[in-house]
Amino acid sequence: MTDTITKMLNTHPAQIDIDQQLLAECLAACFECAQTCTACADACLSEDMVADLTKCIRTNLDCADVCETTGRVLSRHTGYDANITRAVLQACAQACKSCGDECAQHADMHEHCRICAEACRRCEQACNRVLAAIA
Amino acid sequence: MTDTITKMLNTHPAQIDIDQQLLAECLAACFECAQTCTACADACLSEDMVADLTKCIRTNLDCADVCETTGRVLSRHTGYDANITRAVLQACAQACKSCGDECAQHADMHEHCRICAEACRRCEQACNRVLAAIA
Amino acid sequence: MTDTITKMLNTHPAQIDIDQQLLAECLAACFECAQTCTACADACLSEDMVADLTKCIRTNLDCADVCETTGRVLSRHTGYDANITRAVLQACAQACKSCGDECAQHADMHEHCRICAEACRRCEQACNRVLAAIA
Amino acid sequence: MTDTITKMLNTHPAQIDIDQQLLAECLAACFECAQTCTACADACLSEDMVADLTKCIRTNLDCADVCETTGRVLSRHTGYDANITRAVLQACAQACKSCGDECAQHADMHEHCRICAEACRRCEQACNRVLAAIA
Repeated sequence: MTDTITKMLNTHPAQIDIDQQLLAECLAACFECAQTCTACADACLSEDMVADLTKCIRTNLDCADVCETTGRVLSRHTGYDANITRAVLQACAQACKSCGDECAQHADMHEHCRICAEACRRCEQACNRVLAAIA
Repeated sequence: MTDTITKMLNTHPAQIDIDQQLLAECLAACFECAQTCTACADACLSEDMVADLTKCIRTNLDCADVCETTGRVLSRHTGYDANITRAVLQACAQACKSCGDECAQHADMHEHCRICAEACRRCEQACNRVLAAIA
Repeated sequence: MTDTITKMLNTHPAQIDIDQQLLAECLAACFECAQTCTACADACLSEDMVADLTKCIRTNLDCADVCETTGRVLSRHTGYDANITRAVLQACAQACKSCGDECAQHADMHEHCRICAEACRRCEQACNRVLAAIA
Repeated sequence: MTDTITKMLNTHPAQIDIDQQLLAECLAACFECAQTCTACADACLSEDMVADLTKCIRTNLDCADVCETTGRVLSRHTGYDANITRAVLQACAQACKSCGDECAQHADMHEHCRICAEACRRCEQACNRVLAAIA
């Protein structure tokens, strides 16, 4: 997917003020995290001990929604508004932090939570790097 | 829709710490604003002067995505995490402010932009009221 | 929300070939059902007997996603493609039927499932009425 | 992303009845196509000749929404309902076909449309392969 993301950035007619390497990595991280959180929420739902995973499921669902929206906003460069980009990236870094922390607590028992925690960390860091670059 | 939103809040088994009246108004405003921004983006796209409305279309698309995600996050009360709620509401208030400002500039020429600017203002205010209540 | 939906339809510069009353009702039903299914999934997640509601939660999540996408597609009238509209409405009617059936099985025990089943039925019927009108 | 998708499928506690290789390819294709269509809509919006690309933008937006929803539904395996999966895959194959056809018409002039048409074809085929496998 990163390959297609980079090609689309290269062919965009608008000027893109954010470092394209950072941007491509953040886009890939957002979509990966969105898919992983959706899958982790559903995997948790199929566990026998689902009753112990309800906060994890809820946080996964929030994080999937926020990552998807962030990936969409970062895919747009027409009429750029730094205020929206910044606020959305901050929300995404927060959702990924909360979800990464929650999934990490179940990482020893559930491999899907371990993989998901890693995707959340990657996305949190990628958002923070873009935030630093546009500060 | 507000009627069903309120009924769903009343029957939720979890404790809801946010004032339910404020919450119901904010939920209704988020979904209304999401639909209105999606419709306004498409109405702008059908205008003869679409070339003058590209920033408006882009901001509408961002605002629709952020409002939808905010409406989803606010619909969940299991395993509540105030940090996510706050960051998402801040992003939504910002997207609504930017989109309301942009649509307001075209309100004299395009009735759909005037209606959309109003929906953005209502949603921005509703988000700010919930933010103040959970501060 | 129906009021704003109707105003946005009235001010759209493109020709809208679908009966606007049917369309407005279907749009309102899609967004209401999306919100109700998101809320019902989360309410189920907070029930003590969550382990008995996992299929209901999953179907609620699918139905929320499909209804939201359908509401977005139906909000657009520029460059209308009847094939997409038809396929999306069929998917939405199916998701609402499946989710309505599932929620109806828990309606006696959980009021949120009863309210959600009703929202699914309304949306299923609204989709089928638009499908019949564009056949 | 395909790597993480495959890992999440391997660690899911539910039985997955669809061929996992086909499913992983379809999931990756859906998320790639969603991102590419979102980016292509915005690239078209920044072209000088945006007035000639309004149908392309609209179809891109529909296709992005449908692909994202399809990717979410296919990420879930708890309480599997073949009727929803089938209807959603059919809608996705149709949206990708319509969008691929539309983008292909602008492929000679706009490289982003050429890349997007290819992503749409890959996703259409991936959906049709899964549909054939679950028939």
